[in-house]
Amino acid sequence: MDDKDTSRLEAFSDGVFAVAITLLVLTIKVDSPAKLLDDAALRLELLRQWPMLLAFATSFFSIGIMWLNHHRLFKHIKHTDTGLLFINLVLLFIIVFVPIPTALLAEYFIHSDQHVAAILYSGTFLAMACCMNLLWRYASYRGRLLGKEPDPHAVMAISRQYMFGPLLYLIAFGLAWINTPASIIVNLLLALLFAAPGLPPLPLRLTSVFRKNHVDEQKQ
Amino acid sequence: MDDKDTSRLEAFSDGVFAVAITLLVLTIKVDSPAKLLDDAALRLELLRQWPMLLAFATSFFSIGIMWLNHHRLFKHIKHTDTGLLFINLVLLFIIVFVPIPTALLAEYFIHSDQHVAAILYSGTFLAMACCMNLLWRYASYRGRLLGKEPDPHAVMAISRQYMFGPLLYLIAFGLAWINTPASIIVNLLLALLFAAPGLPPLPLRLTSVFRKNHVDEQKQ
Amino acid sequence: MDDKDTSRLEAFSDGVFAVAITLLVLTIKVDSPAKLLDDAALRLELLRQWPMLLAFATSFFSIGIMWLNHHRLFKHIKHTDTGLLFINLVLLFIIVFVPIPTALLAEYFIHSDQHVAAILYSGTFLAMACCMNLLWRYASYRGRLLGKEPDPHAVMAISRQYMFGPLLYLIAFGLAWINTPASIIVNLLLALLFAAPGLPPLPLRLTSVFRKNHVDEQKQ
Amino acid sequence: MDDKDTSRLEAFSDGVFAVAITLLVLTIKVDSPAKLLDDAALRLELLRQWPMLLAFATSFFSIGIMWLNHHRLFKHIKHTDTGLLFINLVLLFIIVFVPIPTALLAEYFIHSDQHVAAILYSGTFLAMACCMNLLWRYASYRGRLLGKEPDPHAVMAISRQYMFGPLLYLIAFGLAWINTPASIIVNLLLALLFAAPGLPPLPLRLTSVFRKNHVDEQKQ
Repeated sequence: MDDKDTSRLEAFSDGVFAVAITLLVLTIKVDSPAKLLDDAALRLELLRQWPMLLAFATSFFSIGIMWLNHHRLFKHIKHTDTGLLFINLVLLFIIVFVPIPTALLAEYFIHSDQHVAAILYSGTFLAMACCMNLLWRYASYRGRLLGKEPDPHAVMAISRQYMFGPLLYLIAFGLAWINTPASIIVNLLLALLFAAPGLPPLPLRLTSVFRKNHVDEQKQ
Repeated sequence: MDDKDTSRLEAFSDGVFAVAITLLVLTIKVDSPAKLLDDAALRLELLRQWPMLLAFATSFFSIGIMWLNHHRLFKHIKHTDTGLLFINLVLLFIIVFVPIPTALLAEYFIHSDQHVAAILYSGTFLAMACCMNLLWRYASYRGRLLGKEPDPHAVMAISRQYMFGPLLYLIAFGLAWINTPASIIVNLLLALLFAAPGLPPLPLRLTSVFRKNHVDEQKQ
Repeated sequence: MDDKDTSRLEAFSDGVFAVAITLLVLTIKVDSPAKLLDDAALRLELLRQWPMLLAFATSFFSIGIMWLNHHRLFKHIKHTDTGLLFINLVLLFIIVFVPIPTALLAEYFIHSDQHVAAILYSGTFLAMACCMNLLWRYASYRGRLLGKEPDPHAVMAISRQYMFGPLLYLIAFGLAWINTPASIIVNLLLALLFAAPGLPPLPLRLTSVFRKNHVDEQKQ
Repeated sequence: MDDKDTSRLEAFSDGVFAVAITLLVLTIKVDSPAKLLDDAALRLELLRQWPMLLAFATSFFSIGIMWLNHHRLFKHIKHTDTGLLFINLVLLFIIVFVPIPTALLAEYFIHSDQHVAAILYSGTFLAMACCMNLLWRYASYRGRLLGKEPDPHAVMAISRQYMFGPLLYLIAFGLAWINTPASIIVNLLLALLFAAPGLPPLPLRLTSVFRKNHVDEQKQ
């Protein structure tokens, strides 16, 4: 019965993620001038669109990988309550909002002296990372919404990875006030970083190995 | 076999809810003027968009929480018939229509002496609440489309909560003729109120506790 | 394994139906004039949009009920092959195309001396009905894609109902050349007619009752 | 647990495919001129749109059949890892991008002396075929992501069919530099060719029959 609740939530979230990621394409607009262009002019016009393509790709992979992580969390989250449903709805709200800053960024990207679009863009992803974090903290707090026998290592690995998420996105957000392209590239790299499943930074990984041995010993 | 019917209906409805909630973002339009704006002007332009964002957020959470409630109902509804399918289709029709009044409201919100947009907006949500109510009345009437052993308390709690829904939305609708912002805020509060699962008003909750004890005693 | 094939096909079709039905809302366009209208003018402007709303509603319910029928068929169809997948893809192609004639019709509806938009609109639904028919004939021919023990009465009832479908849509198509509003109303009525599950015309229903008794007797 | 991973991936991919294929309809734009056209002029205007319809149909069936093939692959792929998830995301990125070259092609199709739009269009489908190929190679390499007992004939048949895919799309891409209509027609034919389930070219099919007999003998 409880499981059913989660599966619904996931199906609806999947739908919203899938539509939002596809609607991003509407941010790419090739101006159709009054007169059709000849081959050389059209090639030039298309090449001029690279900031749009970069903004589109960054948003696409950020949402796509946010979806991956959403599912990684819900492998462990087995129950729902009103609070979780609400946090999830806020997360979806931010996801659905992404095309707006993406379109703005695509337009203002080439003006390196202007930062408002990049700040809004990075701020949106910062809010998304915070919301994802909140979702996990809320669900995993004393393991209340996890299954009966949660995998303690997996849960800890996620908690550790998520501790750094908002921090890293905060750096990208800070960069947006200074250097637009650097901020976008950091955002793109962060998306790719979070594609890896629960990969903790090196020092933490060693601790984890140590702790794992410790637990294994206790089991014997 | 009957269960399969409901699961199809729910999957299709989920799809429509997910697409409709995501399409709302198309109501936010940042005018791209002929000349790109400088940072100060763009910030101003974005801040000027707050009515759009409020209308977008109100519609997003209203549809999102309508979806939550749709699923709460279908936890109890186990069978379908032509009547239910048709009522559900009418409900989806209203859901799909929401972006239209949302866009209108976003445009006319700041003109406090104009009410047509707010009336259409509140009217749409009133119709949605009535349709949701009808869906539940139709399905729960003599328990005909509920499962073999419906939970009488849950069913009663929903029926009670739903009794007040259209009434409260009627108040928001009435307010729209007098005061646009008040009407929108009531709509937003109503959405949040219905996020709580079957939360009956206080006096009724006491009765329910009493009745529950009574039933528990009978069980012993 | 074969069942899995059908469930995929259905999930994808459900998705396309859900998106197509929701995208219809984009056909409703409330012109935002340079200057915002006052209350009286906006009300007038909205009332002038009724042909849009009628076209939107007719398309919404036609697609919605086509979805209902799609699922009724796939309750009996248990296997797929390349032919079925292809016919289904053509059906989805027509479904996805519907917003185009809907938008055209909304624009040209009030000009009762013009028929091209209505012809295209009715023609699209005629093609849809034919395609649906072909899907069923292809799948039910010698019961090759139905389950191991198809329900002969249900199969026959569907076959009978579908025999008349294209014929009735042909009448609506014919009317479009003469009288646009009459054609749209017939289309809307047809959608509602097909909402009823396998409801055969009266004389056939009597035969069916007779045959059912006959079979019941044989069972004894 | 592993199976669950694939089913999620498939559900999300299905969603993106379904939305992308439906959004294609937005590439069809019937210009609504300032004045409504009379019947003859509208008929003419609609007939003039045939390149749009051809581009729309080619993209629709290409994506639709790409979806078919995606599911054929995932009948055999039972496990996922980060690499597969990432390749799949890149594939979806290309799918979502399709409406852009489709809209461009629709505009530039009739100018047989211009090739940039056709090159971009064919290039997109070439990239899609390569990505699909990579997905299969990655998953089937030493059978690492296939189930415990993969069907060797089916796997080999797919591998063989996919060997030729990118090659054939490369031909269509080459043609785009010389002759736009020929390139589009080849693209459409390729989509239809790949609709057939694992149909290898004739000589290979004979070998396969021979090998099958051989295996059957060994079984006895």
